[in-house]
Amino acid sequence: MNHPARLKALDRSLDAGHFDSFVVTHLPNVRYLCGFAGSSAVLAFAAGEWAFFTDGRYTEQAMQQVRGASLHVSPGASLTEAARWMATKFKRRKMRVRIGVEAEHFTLALEQRLANALAEQLPRSRFRLVPTSDLVERLRVKKDADEIRVMREAAKLASGIFPDVLRQISSQATENEIAAELEYLARKAGAEKMSFETIVAAGKRSALPHARPTTQRLGRGFVVLDYGVILHGYCSDMTRTIFSGRADAAARKLYDAVLEAQLAGIAAVRSGRPVGEVDAVARAVLKKRKLDKYFTHSLGHGVGLEIHEAPRLAKGQTQVLEPGMVITIEPGAYVAGRGGVRIEDLVLVTERGCEVLSSTPKEFVSC
Amino acid sequence: MNHPARLKALDRSLDAGHFDSFVVTHLPNVRYLCGFAGSSAVLAFAAGEWAFFTDGRYTEQAMQQVRGASLHVSPGASLTEAARWMATKFKRRKMRVRIGVEAEHFTLALEQRLANALAEQLPRSRFRLVPTSDLVERLRVKKDADEIRVMREAAKLASGIFPDVLRQISSQATENEIAAELEYLARKAGAEKMSFETIVAAGKRSALPHARPTTQRLGRGFVVLDYGVILHGYCSDMTRTIFSGRADAAARKLYDAVLEAQLAGIAAVRSGRPVGEVDAVARAVLKKRKLDKYFTHSLGHGVGLEIHEAPRLAKGQTQVLEPGMVITIEPGAYVAGRGGVRIEDLVLVTERGCEVLSSTPKEFVSC
Repeated sequence: MNHPARLKALDRSLDAGHFDSFVVTHLPNVRYLCGFAGSSAVLAFAAGEWAFFTDGRYTEQAMQQVRGASLHVSPGASLTEAARWMATKFKRRKMRVRIGVEAEHFTLALEQRLANALAEQLPRSRFRLVPTSDLVERLRVKKDADEIRVMREAAKLASGIFPDVLRQISSQATENEIAAELEYLARKAGAEKMSFETIVAAGKRSALPHARPTTQRLGRGFVVLDYGVILHGYCSDMTRTIFSGRADAAARKLYDAVLEAQLAGIAAVRSGRPVGEVDAVARAVLKKRKLDKYFTHSLGHGVGLEIHEAPRLAKGQTQVLEPGMVITIEPGAYVAGRGGVRIEDLVLVTERGCEVLSSTPKEFVSC
Repeated sequence: MNHPARLKALDRSLDAGHFDSFVVTHLPNVRYLCGFAGSSAVLAFAAGEWAFFTDGRYTEQAMQQVRGASLHVSPGASLTEAARWMATKFKRRKMRVRIGVEAEHFTLALEQRLANALAEQLPRSRFRLVPTSDLVERLRVKKDADEIRVMREAAKLASGIFPDVLRQISSQATENEIAAELEYLARKAGAEKMSFETIVAAGKRSALPHARPTTQRLGRGFVVLDYGVILHGYCSDMTRTIFSGRADAAARKLYDAVLEAQLAGIAAVRSGRPVGEVDAVARAVLKKRKLDKYFTHSLGHGVGLEIHEAPRLAKGQTQVLEPGMVITIEPGAYVAGRGGVRIEDLVLVTERGCEVLSSTPKEFVSC
């Protein structure tokens, strides 16, 4: 991964926003910018330089992973160390220093700690903490070649275990058991971990979009399987819905409608198109069948180092698709008391359309 | 779980701190106070009343779980809805309203959103957001009978799978494979999920206290297995170190020293004792053997709805043990380039001593 190029791109945003300094505390952003994959670190920018701060537990890992920033390992709190380093950079400066912090991830406690540590060396009137939003997240939206390679691999790994998951399906198995088998298979296949809590929702529970697996047996009805893996830090995300037992015509019809909506959504993905339009295309398919009232969430979301990233593919959203974005297309229809269907693929936006990264078939399966 | 009693206890803290209002956004605190186990909610206090806010995805779950607070389900952001509700409570009030927020969990973005929503109905001069620390966490330190029952069960489940984990150990197995087997067994035994990322660290890697499992084969040497499960929301935590292959006298000696330190630590646990003293007792055992320099972390931590809670059992800490606290006792010795040993139990503080909740034997095992 080309971390120095990412830091350079952020430099330009900081310059445009007239920031003298910037503090990155959100770990996925730290990882994106300098490569560090551990769970405690601060990355700071001051006077044109990037510096990385962590504690002794991560010395070896930081030396192996961090690129594009000087390395500072200390027993104290990383944020305090970063503040000291920043303060020395601005000791002789007359004008007030503008220090950007990540508003969505910076707590009031961290704000106080940073301000106090800075104030040990700079008068409070000489610096200002400025909340910022999405400065790094904006860069992360378009994946580069290295990221795409890894995400393709993650999606392939997740798709690859699905046939073995299917073999476990029986009306007597519980949701929990299927989730356990699925995660075991993923791990054995090399997943670092799951990218979110695996959903296995059977029967009436398949109508709950956010169901967690329970000790309920699958019985007869839809089974929604929604899961993803993490590989080299990057997430995959995929949903398949199968039918446990013999399906009737109504179940078949519901499935086919959602699948048609999903295929229409995928076909609508194209660089330059506002995400809200893609959502509308998929929703229109369900509307034609009078099923749109059962599609109660948005069509999809970006995926990368985090399972939910920009863009959000929802009604009315105007963000425009660009090549290199990796998004989910996941329409669903949830009929309370009866059951639900969701079908989801991970999709890479390309110049002329898209590439579907999930390779698991989507034909109706009953077992 | 007696949620109304917990809310009452918090009412008293708020009263003592002269808070007119309080906003709980940290989800483990929301769960502790009112029982809601979902992943999006706000709990708010104003004018003597508690109110719970979530969105449509959680209607059914909230109705089933929430106790002690009125229920508000809305399509908008829960924090904005909470702000509106709070503002109506203080419309006619002349004095400035003091609203507590959780400094360790409240981001600058949330602060701005809350202030803006309040300002729609109250002049900005009429309210003040006050950062607070640990108001709810302090209540959570001492577990009640219901919590102890659940944590005992979680520790038992985790201990129960260990013999089956041992059966998987071979010099040819990889760390990843053992972790996969372990988590599979936990899930099959009924765990909701793991309480943190399972550590399986073999050979030289056993000397890294925070190692994550890799594709490395166990080979010959120590294998540190550190894991926990979640049951009804509550965490367990346990570490065992075994030896893969035939151990020499030096390995045996290192193991015995850590075990002696761990047993001394457990024997030192008693209501009324400062936690720093317990740390010192265990550390002294290793010091006698000149191994204290290899014990590079603190002796333990509280466990509950989160895997790391108060108290922190570390050098010099003065917090006093009380009956109902659930803590870990986990000394270790990590010899770089050679290997490490850590032995950890989950321990309930009682009037006269403690009850060890983990039931897995600690004799030296080589396999």
